[in-house]
Amino acid sequence: MSSENLIEILEEGHKVDILKYIDYVSSPQAGAIATFSGTTRDMFQGKAVLELRYEAYVPMATRCLSSICTAARSNWDIHKIAVAHRLGPVPVGETSVFIAVSSVHRGDGLDACKFLIDELKATVPIWKKEVYSNGEVWKENSEFLEKRDGLVKKPVVGEHKRSCCGSKVRVQEEEEHKDIARDNSSS
Amino acid sequence: MSSENLIEILEEGHKVDILKYIDYVSSPQAGAIATFSGTTRDMFQGKAVLELRYEAYVPMATRCLSSICTAARSNWDIHKIAVAHRLGPVPVGETSVFIAVSSVHRGDGLDACKFLIDELKATVPIWKKEVYSNGEVWKENSEFLEKRDGLVKKPVVGEHKRSCCGSKVRVQEEEEHKDIARDNSSS
Repeated sequence: MSSENLIEILEEGHKVDILKYIDYVSSPQAGAIATFSGTTRDMFQGKAVLELRYEAYVPMATRCLSSICTAARSNWDIHKIAVAHRLGPVPVGETSVFIAVSSVHRGDGLDACKFLIDELKATVPIWKKEVYSNGEVWKENSEFLEKRDGLVKKPVVGEHKRSCCGSKVRVQEEEEHKDIARDNSSS
Repeated sequence: MSSENLIEILEEGHKVDILKYIDYVSSPQAGAIATFSGTTRDMFQGKAVLELRYEAYVPMATRCLSSICTAARSNWDIHKIAVAHRLGPVPVGETSVFIAVSSVHRGDGLDACKFLIDELKATVPIWKKEVYSNGEVWKENSEFLEKRDGLVKKPVVGEHKRSCCGSKVRVQEEEEHKDIARDNSSS
């Protein structure tokens, strides 16, 4: 089996072409393809959402995505992985993140797909702003915070390396995030 | 949230149009879509597979698929479910079964998708023949057999009703299966 990953962080204005990623992982050697799409939904905690906006420090996000693909391959027998994340505004109903995993047997693909989206949410430096009809707010990712709190509670030397991107705990430092994202917006 | 399922068993010659099912489950109310595709792979136990052939007793298979959708909804908070299964020959690389599940939160969709394909394989009366370069064989579905063996070991009255389709244990009675499938081929 090959060991290939396709990782793409899409600049503003580029929609996620899910068929492209499904085609990428498809293979005569694979009997199973599991996918996950994260889409913008219209409500959050009772408030009407207009769109989500994503920003990222692309080089680090790409490295982190590569690391979680490697981690998935160490745990499951996977053929190909595709991960795509859109930046900029993502209107209601559209896809912001897409993961596709092919495998010989379905258990590997399904479990790896779940692992990949959970790890992406918890460790990859991509930040989300929710835009409501009456304002906007950087969304604190509770999974980031849990990971950070876990680190704070158990300050073992080197423990931050358990996530592929230790610096991801910067999620709450809003202004700093914005600066990083802006610096990267032309990449 | 609505409570809608789309269940389709596709007659011979009709490919699975996965975008149709993804579009069906997509909704502004859903933040997550999990999918699973089962595809024909080129090798099984070291033998080159040319194609798989599927036959079904369609009315019962449809009822069973509806039952497992109901079971999934009782366990997870799901928006929409689509399940499609192709009959007849399915060449290497093509999709025989596709499941799409949308949900507000990703955990529900991912877990329900895994449950649905596991239950489909274990309980829905759709039979598979593997066609090799040098012959063909009805594939005994090990998940069927485990379920049946479980029933045989624990002959509790009514226990066969744990699966949505108790009659599914007929998987090994090949001639009978063929007759059922042939009877149904014009449906």
